[in-house]
Amino acid sequence: MDAYKKAGVDINAGYKLVNEIKSLSKNTELGAFGGMFPLALGDYREPVLVSGTDGVGTKLLIAIQAGLNETVGIDLVAMCVNDILAQGAKPLFFLDYLGVGHLDPDQAKHIVAGVVKGVSEAGAKLIGGETAEMPDMYTNGHYDLAGFAVGIADQSQLLKKTDLSEGDVLLGLASNGLHSNGFSLVRDILFKQHDYKLTDQLPGLDRDLKHELLRPTRIYVKSVLPLVEQGFIASIAHITGGGLPENVARILPENLAAEFNTNTWPMPAIMTELQKLGQLSFDDMKHTFNLGLGMVLAVHPENVAQVKEALVKSGETVYQVGRLVSGFKEVLIRKD
Amino acid sequence: MDAYKKAGVDINAGYKLVNEIKSLSKNTELGAFGGMFPLALGDYREPVLVSGTDGVGTKLLIAIQAGLNETVGIDLVAMCVNDILAQGAKPLFFLDYLGVGHLDPDQAKHIVAGVVKGVSEAGAKLIGGETAEMPDMYTNGHYDLAGFAVGIADQSQLLKKTDLSEGDVLLGLASNGLHSNGFSLVRDILFKQHDYKLTDQLPGLDRDLKHELLRPTRIYVKSVLPLVEQGFIASIAHITGGGLPENVARILPENLAAEFNTNTWPMPAIMTELQKLGQLSFDDMKHTFNLGLGMVLAVHPENVAQVKEALVKSGETVYQVGRLVSGFKEVLIRKD
Repeated sequence: MDAYKKAGVDINAGYKLVNEIKSLSKNTELGAFGGMFPLALGDYREPVLVSGTDGVGTKLLIAIQAGLNETVGIDLVAMCVNDILAQGAKPLFFLDYLGVGHLDPDQAKHIVAGVVKGVSEAGAKLIGGETAEMPDMYTNGHYDLAGFAVGIADQSQLLKKTDLSEGDVLLGLASNGLHSNGFSLVRDILFKQHDYKLTDQLPGLDRDLKHELLRPTRIYVKSVLPLVEQGFIASIAHITGGGLPENVARILPENLAAEFNTNTWPMPAIMTELQKLGQLSFDDMKHTFNLGLGMVLAVHPENVAQVKEALVKSGETVYQVGRLVSGFKEVLIRKD
Repeated sequence: MDAYKKAGVDINAGYKLVNEIKSLSKNTELGAFGGMFPLALGDYREPVLVSGTDGVGTKLLIAIQAGLNETVGIDLVAMCVNDILAQGAKPLFFLDYLGVGHLDPDQAKHIVAGVVKGVSEAGAKLIGGETAEMPDMYTNGHYDLAGFAVGIADQSQLLKKTDLSEGDVLLGLASNGLHSNGFSLVRDILFKQHDYKLTDQLPGLDRDLKHELLRPTRIYVKSVLPLVEQGFIASIAHITGGGLPENVARILPENLAAEFNTNTWPMPAIMTELQKLGQLSFDDMKHTFNLGLGMVLAVHPENVAQVKEALVKSGETVYQVGRLVSGFKEVLIRKD
């Protein structure tokens, strides 16, 4: 075992980490060849598993540089479980993959603590994971993080394009800032085109750059899933890379278009500042950032009042941002 | 979209890749927010989902350096589905995560083609994936690859420690060389302690180093799963990082030990050469490499002949490598 350790892989540090994760996640079965999840099928007639994988992108580079690795695990879980929710499914379990150059047990513990927190916010269970120590693969203390989530829905409960109608109302749920997209552009603007430091504070922001940029992606499961289960939501778009245009287009049938009016919700100050500093066109903005909406729900008009009320009660900030009109899958974002 | 592309992220190249993966995998539903897998539950009374995640480790660095990226996807699938098989479960579906510094569509296509091949060998379905382009995170053309597999078994079919008895026979299934473990040590020995090139050929080997090192990890699902389903296998250890000692220990109950006799199977020539070149102790060897056995099955004596015959018919090379004896979870590897 000495030879392997000398070559840069410390298996014992890995085992120690597994024990700490077991304790953090309160799942003592972690460490088996595969994670187990017994399926309770009482409520399902035609169960469909819905699964997604995602990462955090170069937001990780901000976390690494700032030495603040506690929240990227929340981002990781959010990116995956919000996708599952967008299909109308309930997240069941989660696994994470952490690739590092050299295993720093303290750093890894912080990262996984964020994952555990995210999984709990999503009402899911962490049933496995992998920490891969790869000398020479990652340099400069870099690491990458991938997440995998599995959820379940009855076939009849999955959200379908055919459930959408002209006149359906689009409700936008406030994002918590940039979430986990557009960070290569953010870094380019702030640190290459300009010379900002992570400790700087931009005008209109209530915290320094590192804390602003590292706001964790919001997890919408607990507020939205009950409404899906009650049949009040016609469709959901999780706004990630590609912004409103590309993510909303994915939920539209061939005969409908989505019309947003940007006057109906505020764009987060960090995005306004980035637009100025990077001299970005609105076209660039809308294809890269969430513009302040982390999730868009399509709701039949008769359910709007009830849905809004329930979401606000659950702690969401909700905006009525547009509606579905006759069209050909266009996503129109009007600025007046 | 121009600004994001200039910052190093080409969303359109990503979309093009998704279309190519759809075509390779023949799964036209790829690209939705979450991958779907309808569960056919006819055969299950108490279904348990079994899930695992893994990577390929620094074997990737060999593939990158050699420009041979077609088989690491098979390694990725193998690492995950063999773990699921080791629990007695049938792999259902798979997702992959590919992190790159700069998306090279041709390279990504080769990588994913390997994933598609592995998934097919495992009798599973590729239902989703993520390709993350992360400028500044990965340098020198490096990429990382993580996989995620979900399988299913009836609660009563899961392999349990209590099914093992003193006298059970250990059958070893030949590995296809190094599989995906120990590569940081391999690289240290060959390229740091010594000055070999990937085009060199070591004594006793039938191919050059790059092809020897990149032999894909064997996928044991199609040969072993039918025997599990017929109840002929008491337990399975998938031999990965930590080698026979640590992976076999994981399947042992408190009152049994495993005894291997290394004279009963041949160690692959690449490992003999690495041992010489790296002056490795047998202790280092057994904790780092699979020693030639990719999977170890524990079989009750009355089933051994039938299991062996079936495995050979399925194309496996099978060795009777040891047995379970009274003990305290020790894994004894005798060299006489």
